[in-house]
Amino acid sequence: MINIGLLEFKHYTDEYGSLVALEENNNIPFDIKRVYYIYGVLTNVRRGFHSHKALDQALICVKGSVKILVKTHTEEEIYTLNSPTEALYIGPMIWREMYDFSEDAVLLVLASEKYDEADYIRKWEVYYPLAVDYFSKK
Amino acid sequence: MINIGLLEFKHYTDEYGSLVALEENNNIPFDIKRVYYIYGVLTNVRRGFHSHKALDQALICVKGSVKILVKTHTEEEIYTLNSPTEALYIGPMIWREMYDFSEDAVLLVLASEKYDEADYIRKWEVYYPLAVDYFSKK
Repeated sequence: MINIGLLEFKHYTDEYGSLVALEENNNIPFDIKRVYYIYGVLTNVRRGFHSHKALDQALICVKGSVKILVKTHTEEEIYTLNSPTEALYIGPMIWREMYDFSEDAVLLVLASEKYDEADYIRKWEVYYPLAVDYFSKK
Repeated sequence: MINIGLLEFKHYTDEYGSLVALEENNNIPFDIKRVYYIYGVLTNVRRGFHSHKALDQALICVKGSVKILVKTHTEEEIYTLNSPTEALYIGPMIWREMYDFSEDAVLLVLASEKYDEADYIRKWEVYYPLAVDYFSKK
């Protein structure tokens, strides 16, 4: 699926525990300007329901598990994130929904830009024609 | 204590869960170039035992709890981190040790530079005279 990919990270594990290190423009394929994390989500909650016009993001479930639905006007895929060593890369113009958070889940997200409300598309009926246009040029 | 401080973050909490957002040169007082996380640490383990010459870091315990000892040649302080909305800022030339990790602890660290072994000081006997010199100029 265009603008979607799984990233696998090395982990440094020894008798002192485990460490995963992420660097911008290295194992994270963009600048890291913003980092956010989501936690305390009830199991029956579904979040997201938006796309970004230009933002790159990497989603890592550093604790617990969560499912991510990603879709465009023509395709959809579901990913289960449950490892600190794996990220779901989500590029521009991908609709996303997050659900089935485990009680202990912490979803860490690295983003290529600071918060910009103008980059959000929050309605499917607005997203759909923009996606038709965007993906016709890819 | 010089080069040490607690940062408090807003959390956006509603019926969909909680979110904390960190931005470089905004509520994080430096560029974010590297993000790492430590997990799976046994309770009896003590990690760290080093200083950085120039690196800025923000440590957030996004799950569970951990204690951080920070010290110089003349001072020491102990912080308990146990909230996703609080970071311990550690600037240059601070010796740090991390211990009493809870079983579920995930310690997230934001760093101002990519990994550079030359920025580490890993021996107390090397750190001590450098700290005397560094802090005499502050």
